[in-house]
Amino acid sequence: MRTIEWEDNKLKLIDQTKLPDELEYVYCENYQEVIEAIDTMVVRGAPAIGIAAGFAMALAYLAGEDLKDVSLKIKASRPTAVNLFWAVDRVYNSDNPVNEALVMYNEDISTNLAIGKNGSKIIDDGDTILTHCNAGALACVDYGTALGVFRAAFNEGKNINVICDETRPRGQGAKLSVWEMQNEGIPVKLIPDVASGYLMSIGKIDKVVIGADRVGKGGIANKIGSLMVALAANRFNVPFYVAAPLSTFDKDNSIFDTKIEERSPDEVIYYGGCRICPKGTEVINPAFDIVPSDLITGIITEEGIIKPF
Amino acid sequence: MRTIEWEDNKLKLIDQTKLPDELEYVYCENYQEVIEAIDTMVVRGAPAIGIAAGFAMALAYLAGEDLKDVSLKIKASRPTAVNLFWAVDRVYNSDNPVNEALVMYNEDISTNLAIGKNGSKIIDDGDTILTHCNAGALACVDYGTALGVFRAAFNEGKNINVICDETRPRGQGAKLSVWEMQNEGIPVKLIPDVASGYLMSIGKIDKVVIGADRVGKGGIANKIGSLMVALAANRFNVPFYVAAPLSTFDKDNSIFDTKIEERSPDEVIYYGGCRICPKGTEVINPAFDIVPSDLITGIITEEGIIKPF
Repeated sequence: MRTIEWEDNKLKLIDQTKLPDELEYVYCENYQEVIEAIDTMVVRGAPAIGIAAGFAMALAYLAGEDLKDVSLKIKASRPTAVNLFWAVDRVYNSDNPVNEALVMYNEDISTNLAIGKNGSKIIDDGDTILTHCNAGALACVDYGTALGVFRAAFNEGKNINVICDETRPRGQGAKLSVWEMQNEGIPVKLIPDVASGYLMSIGKIDKVVIGADRVGKGGIANKIGSLMVALAANRFNVPFYVAAPLSTFDKDNSIFDTKIEERSPDEVIYYGGCRICPKGTEVINPAFDIVPSDLITGIITEEGIIKPF
Repeated sequence: MRTIEWEDNKLKLIDQTKLPDELEYVYCENYQEVIEAIDTMVVRGAPAIGIAAGFAMALAYLAGEDLKDVSLKIKASRPTAVNLFWAVDRVYNSDNPVNEALVMYNEDISTNLAIGKNGSKIIDDGDTILTHCNAGALACVDYGTALGVFRAAFNEGKNINVICDETRPRGQGAKLSVWEMQNEGIPVKLIPDVASGYLMSIGKIDKVVIGADRVGKGGIANKIGSLMVALAANRFNVPFYVAAPLSTFDKDNSIFDTKIEERSPDEVIYYGGCRICPKGTEVINPAFDIVPSDLITGIITEEGIIKPF
């Protein structure tokens, strides 16, 4: 399964807002359509956003657009994911934008395979592993970062059980990670976000592996709720790993300076089309939070497992 | 607003499964109907369950049932709430079951008013206070425990802002606590369960006040997710209070021996009638967790604020 494909100079994306019930594709013929796809979370997950943004630059190049201007517009679409900035700049600075986007596309796959191989070393036979949100194939071109670790361990013959938390408000854990694990034949269970602390307290979770939208000085930024999972893991001595490609790293800046995107109240108020609170309810809906380095056991990268910095 | 009323030898309950969109009542004419109302969460919240159970015994008495047998059936309906056991035994051991249930009913209101008055002392003008689940009027006969503290502070003229987390899977925070605060005119905002840790990390929450289903040796049992909120409060030095009547106390037993009810997977899989995960998803759905004493700043009771034991 490829989350992103480049076909006949068009960008083909799995429409992740329709999963798990319908597997549909969206075709982007210009950079504006890619920005819209990023904005509406048709495509989401830091690595996938980066590659989609690279192809948005390629589409702009093919259309003869002003690439400097386009790069600024793309960068404004989601402020937290550092891969987006990295990918746009890399294509902008290349001689051949279409080729550069394709190189990045293939690199993403090989990077994730390497992350999976490195990460599998920390997975023991019989482990039950919790993940939050979706750092899977759907967050990348293919294979995934955190879920790539589970794929690698499973394919090496280890018996593992995966627990996905729901990941309100958008439910990426329930909708996307559960679906990916089911497709792979990896045993998986769903829990509400509120339940991981309790399960750790009674010894039912052996490890936590999540992805990251940004790795910086002092910690990582990832989907809202990662912090609370990390605090519970810390309390109950459950190893807490982050799987992320080096393209997610922003070594020069404090992670605490990360701009945290605030998303629409409707993401909280409506769920699957149902209103879940009284009419007119006011909402706070931050999309990400920061996990400080002291709560992180290790960061699994394509070059090995490193300590947070 | 009374969550529970005794009218013409019938028990009248607000149907909490219909809120916030519809305010409907269920009438129970026999103890079996009360058990069903407890089981389906037409009535929920530890104090309200206790009072409803007391009236179930009264209904059984009026019908000439074997009260010993009935008491065992009622106690089996929800295993975690200690008030249920307390209330059933109190009516069982009384000479006049109907009168005893009515005495408990009135005591519940006066107890909550006292909890509110005591709890208001820890609320400062300008505070933003988080609560989890619904420890409100709807969890009691009237007024509420945690939400009773907010009512008292607000009625004393303090400017307060309340943040309710959603409280998946059943959404009591989003559906019930938000509704109660709106009805009272107390400023309230809703957040996803995953967001309280982040808001505490950036100093946006001054205090946490929650209820309890049981207070025992070593901590309290409350709605699943209380533990993760408490861990975040501890990390970011946010005072964490539990508001609970003495009828919730079980001083003789370790809180860690509490039987944690596992509820139906459908509570997680469906939300407001919408399926939120792939068909056939397996689920773990514990209803409560334990907050250990070291994470609790104080327990607000009708007799004052005490340290956990």
